[in-house]
Order: sequence, then C-alpha cells, then structure tokens
Amino acid sequence: MPRYYLHSNVIFEPNALEKLPEELARLGITKPLMVTDPGLAELGMVQKCSDLVPELVAFDSTPPNPTELAANQAAELYRRHACDGIFALGGGSSMDLAKAVGILVTHKCDLSDYDVTGPSPKSLGPIAPLLVIPTTAGTGTEVSVGCVLMFNDGHKGVIDSERLIPATVICDPKLTLSLPARLTAATGMDALSHCIEGYCSNISNPLTEPIALDGIRRIAAAIERAVNEPNNLDARSDMMMGALQGGIAMSMELGAAHAMSVPIGAILHGHHGAETAAVLGAAMRFNEGSVPEKMKDIRDALGVPSDGCVENWVDNLCHRIGLGTSLRALGLDETDIDRIAEEAAHSVFNATNPRQGTVDEYRAILTSKL
Amino acid sequence: MPRYYLHSNVIFEPNALEKLPEELARLGITKPLMVTDPGLAELGMVQKCSDLVPELVAFDSTPPNPTELAANQAAELYRRHACDGIFALGGGSSMDLAKAVGILVTHKCDLSDYDVTGPSPKSLGPIAPLLVIPTTAGTGTEVSVGCVLMFNDGHKGVIDSERLIPATVICDPKLTLSLPARLTAATGMDALSHCIEGYCSNISNPLTEPIALDGIRRIAAAIERAVNEPNNLDARSDMMMGALQGGIAMSMELGAAHAMSVPIGAILHGHHGAETAAVLGAAMRFNEGSVPEKMKDIRDALGVPSDGCVENWVDNLCHRIGLGTSLRALGLDETDIDRIAEEAAHSVFNATNPRQGTVDEYRAILTSKL
Repeated sequence: MPRYYLHSNVIFEPNALEKLPEELARLGITKPLMVTDPGLAELGMVQKCSDLVPELVAFDSTPPNPTELAANQAAELYRRHACDGIFALGGGSSMDLAKAVGILVTHKCDLSDYDVTGPSPKSLGPIAPLLVIPTTAGTGTEVSVGCVLMFNDGHKGVIDSERLIPATVICDPKLTLSLPARLTAATGMDALSHCIEGYCSNISNPLTEPIALDGIRRIAAAIERAVNEPNNLDARSDMMMGALQGGIAMSMELGAAHAMSVPIGAILHGHHGAETAAVLGAAMRFNEGSVPEKMKDIRDALGVPSDGCVENWVDNLCHRIGLGTSLRALGLDETDIDRIAEEAAHSVFNATNPRQGTVDEYRAILTSKL
Repeated sequence: MPRYYLHSNVIFEPNALEKLPEELARLGITKPLMVTDPGLAELGMVQKCSDLVPELVAFDSTPPNPTELAANQAAELYRRHACDGIFALGGGSSMDLAKAVGILVTHKCDLSDYDVTGPSPKSLGPIAPLLVIPTTAGTGTEVSVGCVLMFNDGHKGVIDSERLIPATVICDPKLTLSLPARLTAATGMDALSHCIEGYCSNISNPLTEPIALDGIRRIAAAIERAVNEPNNLDARSDMMMGALQGGIAMSMELGAAHAMSVPIGAILHGHHGAETAAVLGAAMRFNEGSVPEKMKDIRDALGVPSDGCVENWVDNLCHRIGLGTSLRALGLDETDIDRIAEEAAHSVFNATNPRQGTVDEYRAILTSKL
C-alpha cells in the first residue's frame, strides 16, 4: 500500500545559524550535545556555536565516516553531562553520527539491533530531540530517514526510520562558502544523483517527484558556479536547496548509480559523491529506455539536447567540475568488477531502479567505465 | 526568517480505507471517536467503519460548516466514552471539526483562545492523535494547519497551528466515486485555486512550489472527466491527489481569489469552492503582470494558449463543469461590493498575493464579475 510521507521543518536563509538558540528552545533543548568534526572545530565552529549557546557540550571527534565506536563515545559524553538534546553541525558524517547518538541515549538495545541489513531489525521509538545544520551540499541526510554506520564488527550497516528525520534543519548557505572546490563538486553530484535517482525510482510519487525535478534543474544551473566561484552566495544557496530537495527525493530510494557506488565505496573508501558521479551518466543511459517520459523531463531539466547522449553530457559536467569518470583512475581494476556487479545486482537500490540490472549488465556498465 | 515545513503521512490507494484499523493502531488509538456528517452516516459509512473498528464511538452530527457548539458536543462524547484518539471521515467540515475536538480534549482553555483572528491567540500544545479520511477533493485541510470554525458568538474564526496537521491521512479515491457532479466541480476548483494561489504566493518556496505546479497540471487534466464520468477511478484519484497537493501548496497562504471569496461566503453561505471559482480567473488576470514567470508556468500547466486570456479560460472551464462565474447569479448585488472589497483588501490573503490590491481595485474586479 503506497505510503507517502514528507517531514521537513527547515529554516533556510543566509545567517540562519543565528537562529540556533531559539530553534533549540523550540525543541525544548536546554543542554545540547554538539556533534561536529575536527576540521570544523579547527575552523572555530565550536567556539562560534558556544558563543550562541554557552551551555553546549561539544563532541568534535566525528570521523570521516561515522562509526558505532564514535557514536558510543559521544553518547557517553551526553549522559555524563545530562544533555537533553543534540545538534549536529557538519556533513553527512556528523549528522548521521548525531542520529545514532539520538538512538543510543533513548534506547536500551545495541545499535546493531536496528540495522536494517541485519537479520531481524527492531523498530525505533522516539529518539532524543535532534536539530541539524548541514555544512555540505550535500548528502540530504538532514531530511532523511537513514543513518549509515560502520559497526564495531567491521560491517557497514544502515538504520532506517522516520524517527531519525531531524526535527529541525537550519540551512545557512554561508556555512558552505568555505567548502573547497573538490568537495563542492563531489557533494553536489551526490545531491544531483539523489534528485535524478529519486525521480526515476519505481516507487516515486506525486509529492516527491516534483521536488526532485526542481532539484535537478536547480543543481544543474548552479553547480559549476558554486565550484568556480566559491563566494557566490546565490550558487551556494541553490546547491544547499538542491541537496535538501535531493534528501526528500531519496526518501523514495535510489537506483543503479547508487547500486554500483556503494560497493565501489566499500573497496575504495573514497568520497561517495565522487564515486557516484563516475557512474551516474552510465546508469542514466542504462535506464533511459525504461522510463522515456521521465528521462525526457530530466533532459529538459539538465539542458541535454534531445539528440544528445545523456551519459556523455553527465560525464562532461563531471570533468568540467574536476571529477573523474574513469573507475581505473579512481583506483579500481578488472579484478574488482565481478564483486561490485554482484553486489549491485542484489542491492535494494537495484530493486527500485526503473529496470533491475542483472550481474552481467552491471559488469558491462562497470567495465565500460574502467 | 523563511521557514519551510512539510508534514504529510499519507496512505494513498483505492481501498485504502481497509487500512484504518492498522493505521489507528500505529497511532496508538484503541478507542477512537469517529467524526462524520449525517449524509455519510445515511450512506452507511458509520456502519462500514464500525465493521472495521468495532470499538469506535460515532459523532455523526457535523454541520455543513463546523461550529464551536458541535465541537463541544463531540468532545463531550469523547470524554464520556474515554476515547483516546479521533478519526474524521468526510469533507472539510468533518476534518476541521475533528481538529477542534482534538484541541478541546487536550487543552484547558476555550477554543476562542486559539483563534488567530482574535486579540492574543495562545499557542497550541499537542492535540489528541488524529487521522483523517477525506471524502471530497477537496479542501486540502487533510494536510494543513488550519481549522475554520463558527464560534458561539457568531463570528467565523481560524485556528492555525502545525499541531493541527493530522498525523495520518488515508486517501481512498473510491470514497469519492459517489460525489455528485456539482460538488466534484466545486471542491475541484477549490483544490485548483489552492494550487494556483499557493504557487503564486509571495511566500511560496522551492519545496511547495513544485508540488503546487504539479497539482495544477493534474487537476486541469482530470477535473472534467471527474465531473462527467463519476465512476472514472483514475480521474477521481488524480483529483484526490491534486487536492492533497493543494493542501500542501496552501501552507504558503493564498491570494486575491480567496481574499474575495471568504467575505463573499460570509454573505452568501454558499459552497466555498463555487464562490472561489467565480473569482479565480479574474484574480489570475489581476496578478499576471506581477508574476509573469509563474503565470507562464501556470498557463503551460493549464494548457492556456500563450496569447489567450487566462480569465476567460478559467471562466470557460467553470462553465463546462457547471459552475457559474456571475456573482449576481450566485446572489450578490451592487450593495454588497463595497463591504467585500473592504474585507478583501485587508485580508491576510491579500498580503501574500503577488500584488496587494487596494479597495478600489477589488471593487473593480468584483463589479466586473457581477
């Protein structure tokens, strides 16, 4: 039975960070745990937030990808200081770590009990009040149900629940003015892929599809300016909105590009956005015949000529913004292809792709991008 | 500071009504008050719901427009039977009445203390768990913050709070198969006006605008079939989705058409949708020069030729579906115009209209539609 949900509560404006105290108060949070990473702490963001919210307790050790270990360390800090809520300031890692902490401080089980890739995942109850402030544009996790974690036993799992959707999102585009070009490009292509794959998903719906299509148009029009003119606030603002729209679009799951990029990432441990960008064009060409109406809308939104090859267009965009589309250049070789193709064909993202690729079909796509 | 919110949790499918027991359980409701109207009771809907949910307590006396009196009567029934939640099955009146009951059984104040048209409206806390099942397409109140009530002192007020957004909506298009042609037309134009006015609102945003535009396209393509082929389930389904999209669009407030139709309704007490339809085209022509890009999108979505008059196009659509666009035929005359124009110019809906009409400008529009 189709169930469509939208849960977003977003403050969106340059300088929106200044609203942090009142938005925490609105959620009833008096003593927040701040979750961020060492780089942002070094840039002075912990100090800046302390000036706004003196009572905060800071956990600034978020690793590049969130781990169960780090989540437990942060939860220990939360309990020790009797915190009553959480805010994350950072990229996908800090936001997902904050979601995990929100679970740990309100539930008695292990995090792995909620891993949807596990044998019998439990349902979540309410988590600690959670506010997030994205500093990349972006993973979309600021409005999504997902939390990706490296568990203590070494496997990467996912916790997936509407309970994890942050209660409030503060989108302050000024926080991305210092995002370096390569990260702008990689996180921007991640956001674009969320909009494209969410739009094409075979479980997309009339509430998320229009938002996804608007996101495609918006990101396509802004991404090069955001990369080349780092201080262009309009471009940064559009990228942040596009990432938010991508986060909403991906509530309807993703497709072949992510089916491939997740196992690619398990081998390369590179930037997820860069890995997804490398295979996005090929995934779109793979899908084109199955969803011709949707692909026409996407071509119009991107500005691809009707007789143009969509894979070449997307690859050329990547090149213009400094991202490679050669999997070999990223670090893969022929010996990796079988494993990636196998995982891609069995991925949940393949299930919601417009066509369900076989192992052989994924092998062919991946080989063509080597 | 712009704040964008989306809160929708929708089950959307023919026969979705069968999911009522599990959706009530999901909200923790074990003994629901059912709020509906005498007409639907007569059609057997109370019995049908009792078969699904034997423990329900039925209040089937919702008047055509919700009143404080009826809300208190229903709340009394709720308390007497120790209910723990509410579901409404009906049109805007039943759903708004249910929202009012949800307030009464959880708050100690009078309903009028929350009236946003009053001197110092209080803020709402959480209300009773609320699920709604629309049977018209529609007011959009199933996903909106508003509750329109006739208070005991005779004035029509509004309670406006995100707390009033129903926790779950069950959209079962089959429930509208029996909706008569005139109601299909009138509620359909109400939904279309929500999409159009929400799209043009000067506080619209990138999350609601794409949904609103999709709603315009969808309703324009379906409304005549829904009126002329009452058993066309696809058309009914599209109208129900368009109404939902209109409910989301109107979270960004409305415009000149509603600025006029609300005071028209205060005089005529006719169908709000029919009253709005009569002035919608004129309102769009009034706005066209102020939002040319948006009006171009709307023309494309409606199918209005680029050199066509948008007012004539909308009026002709109304005529084809049996709705008049002569205010005199609806029951007004010259002596009513000043009062309506005065109220329209001071309406909150005028404030969010692309241009803020003066009393003289509204007088001219209304006179032209007499």
